[in-house]
Amino acid sequence: MFFVSDIIEKKKRGIKLSKEEIEFLIKGYVAGEIPDYQIAAFLMAVYFQGMDEEETTYLTLAMASSGEMIDLSKIDGVKVDKHSSGGIADTTSLVLIPLVASAGVKAAKMSGRGLGHTGGTIDKLESIPGFKTELSLEEFIENVNKIGAAITGQSKHLVPADKKLYALRDVTSTVDSIPLIASSIMSKKIAGGADKIVLDVKFGRGAFMKTYEEAKELAELMVKIGNLAGRETVAFVTDMEQPLGLAIGNSIEVIEAIETLKGNGHEDLINLCFELGSEMLLLSGLYKEKEEAIKVLKDNITSGKALQKFREIIKAQGGDEKVVEDYSLLPGAKYTLEVYPEEDGYVREIDALRLGLTAMKLGAGRQKKEDVIDLGVGIWIFKKVGDFSEKEKPLAKILANDKDKLNWAVKEVEESFILSKEKVPKRKVVWAKITGSEIIEYKS
Amino acid sequence: MFFVSDIIEKKKRGIKLSKEEIEFLIKGYVAGEIPDYQIAAFLMAVYFQGMDEEETTYLTLAMASSGEMIDLSKIDGVKVDKHSSGGIADTTSLVLIPLVASAGVKAAKMSGRGLGHTGGTIDKLESIPGFKTELSLEEFIENVNKIGAAITGQSKHLVPADKKLYALRDVTSTVDSIPLIASSIMSKKIAGGADKIVLDVKFGRGAFMKTYEEAKELAELMVKIGNLAGRETVAFVTDMEQPLGLAIGNSIEVIEAIETLKGNGHEDLINLCFELGSEMLLLSGLYKEKEEAIKVLKDNITSGKALQKFREIIKAQGGDEKVVEDYSLLPGAKYTLEVYPEEDGYVREIDALRLGLTAMKLGAGRQKKEDVIDLGVGIWIFKKVGDFSEKEKPLAKILANDKDKLNWAVKEVEESFILSKEKVPKRKVVWAKITGSEIIEYKS
Repeated sequence: MFFVSDIIEKKKRGIKLSKEEIEFLIKGYVAGEIPDYQIAAFLMAVYFQGMDEEETTYLTLAMASSGEMIDLSKIDGVKVDKHSSGGIADTTSLVLIPLVASAGVKAAKMSGRGLGHTGGTIDKLESIPGFKTELSLEEFIENVNKIGAAITGQSKHLVPADKKLYALRDVTSTVDSIPLIASSIMSKKIAGGADKIVLDVKFGRGAFMKTYEEAKELAELMVKIGNLAGRETVAFVTDMEQPLGLAIGNSIEVIEAIETLKGNGHEDLINLCFELGSEMLLLSGLYKEKEEAIKVLKDNITSGKALQKFREIIKAQGGDEKVVEDYSLLPGAKYTLEVYPEEDGYVREIDALRLGLTAMKLGAGRQKKEDVIDLGVGIWIFKKVGDFSEKEKPLAKILANDKDKLNWAVKEVEESFILSKEKVPKRKVVWAKITGSEIIEYKS
Repeated sequence: MFFVSDIIEKKKRGIKLSKEEIEFLIKGYVAGEIPDYQIAAFLMAVYFQGMDEEETTYLTLAMASSGEMIDLSKIDGVKVDKHSSGGIADTTSLVLIPLVASAGVKAAKMSGRGLGHTGGTIDKLESIPGFKTELSLEEFIENVNKIGAAITGQSKHLVPADKKLYALRDVTSTVDSIPLIASSIMSKKIAGGADKIVLDVKFGRGAFMKTYEEAKELAELMVKIGNLAGRETVAFVTDMEQPLGLAIGNSIEVIEAIETLKGNGHEDLINLCFELGSEMLLLSGLYKEKEEAIKVLKDNITSGKALQKFREIIKAQGGDEKVVEDYSLLPGAKYTLEVYPEEDGYVREIDALRLGLTAMKLGAGRQKKEDVIDLGVGIWIFKKVGDFSEKEKPLAKILANDKDKLNWAVKEVEESFILSKEKVPKRKVVWAKITGSEIIEYKS
């Protein structure tokens, strides 16, 4: 027999909670037996006192089992899921799904819709005419078994505890607590049925975590939770101080993904895809060496095998596979406008957050859940930090369906780039890799 | 325009809140526009980050003005209110009201009902047959103007913000926050219309504050709030490690008050009454010197003037003034049982809290708001810390109306006393006096 106020009191005093106490809270909250105000006080106490890895694991598992638990056992082989903590111009999922599937790893991807800067993977895919993003579990499993990959929106019955807790955290200023973030992400991964998990935890001004240290802390905690929960988890801490790729939008991110699968991707994006993808290959057990795994991924791009897999996925989910050759089949924008630098110079900074918010306000993202995304708008950038920019060549191109928004966006995009006369080094993309047994910090 | 979540965020980060932000929260909460869950998160953030004296004053004033503000301007002279943070065997209010009134100071006392160990002043007075504890504001003012004193229950419309906040704090483990306690107490004093305030802040196992330091911190904060709010406030920090007087109950506390007014009070109780009472006399402006004030109080006990004033109060509020001579008119108990020590010895400790809880369970207090108090039951103690106790003489006497409860209480009372072979010093009652300008720590 537990009393909610005793549990709040314990957490308030920094005393470790038991599995049973945490389960009692989550079950009672989801069942509507524990009121919002007690959970709000509890969440604020967690913000101040934290939770250790065991408590966070209990919380994650209690949340995961609060709703439907997806059973992917009918898919042969090890199911490796990849999750990104969210960034700007980050279309890695769209590249990785066909890429790892082309190497024989089962890519069973359940994805949420985006809230914020741009759409989620599901939103982006809806740019492709006919693409069906809501598969039944049976269709989903069948597709993965048949062609090695499928992508579907998250079941509405997945982790109701997270939905309820997230809505409450949002209005009680308790979003930015590392154990609460970690349990929110990991509960969905665990309920989603993955056997192994690769996490891309981003930091910098375009990410939720602002510093490398915070992102590393979150990554370490999630790796511990995953492993304690019996799902081998590897996390990468990666840069989001500037946009990752070149496209910020929905249909343009699909284009960037296709270009990357054709071998024309920006080095930052493709290198991150090789890093995450090779880890997925290794975790699947089908490959033993990182070099070998990367070679397969590279070969599958060169040979067109990865692109072919994307075509198969599109076709299997009812989409028009011709988009791979003809981008005019994707939603476009009425107006485009190029943005030029004032002077020649090296790009010193690109404000990823400001570009993301600008794309969102152009219509590429949702400010509120109910907002409808304009799939055709967005921002292409042509330069990244360290690149030399001549004043005659555009830094970026804005795509809009509203002239006022287009004109407003110009200043936003211009001011997002800071140039310098001096040479500027390029930014490192992957900063660290964290496994259950080690933390490897990357030199470059 | 304020947003609740921004205010929570500021407090969470330890940023000082403005008067306007605090008023927005309290008004919105009382109006039902801000939900419990946001206030619960805010309260927990206050628990961790505290509030400075200005913020606490803004909170106090916002709470005070959330309901009826009592106007006592029709009473001539300076109205000095006395408040105790609550203790065991603490019948000081019942002694002080007639005592200071007998010295010409207007005693306009509004008091709450008790929750916990024993009844509040209002409950105790209801032991007196016919005593009317719910006066209209007009009757109340008229009585004070006519005989110098009146006692009434708090208006239901006083400080609704405190009622709502207290109920929420109770279930969200946010009761033990010094700024929240201070604003709760002071808002009621300010709304109650007192010009000047004397506070008795108790510490020890029978008090809410467990240590001298905590009580001193609370006292200092309340003095600052009172003075910032324009109500001169003086606080005393006093001992509640053992019971203050000898009676723990309701009608027996009335008896102890009457005995004290007759000059037969226990030295700890009467000395505290002289300390608090002389301060009330000085604050009223009618007296200039502490020695003079104490002399008047002592003289009024010796001469019977103070007791006569109590008779007048009882009569004016419809009570049977004969109780002053005939205690059998007060509710009694069917069963009494004396508790003896096992051996001779000096009393080293008396567990005030355990005795208080025992009295409550006998029926003298309320566990829940709805509980009805049994006015006749309680515990008389005959020894205090430092006293020598012979094994033939009782340490205490239990008064009960239920035989099972009586028998259960014996062990509780026995074990509340710890005796020692060695001599034990008496405990100091008044530890410190805090005014707007100084803190005086008492040697003995």
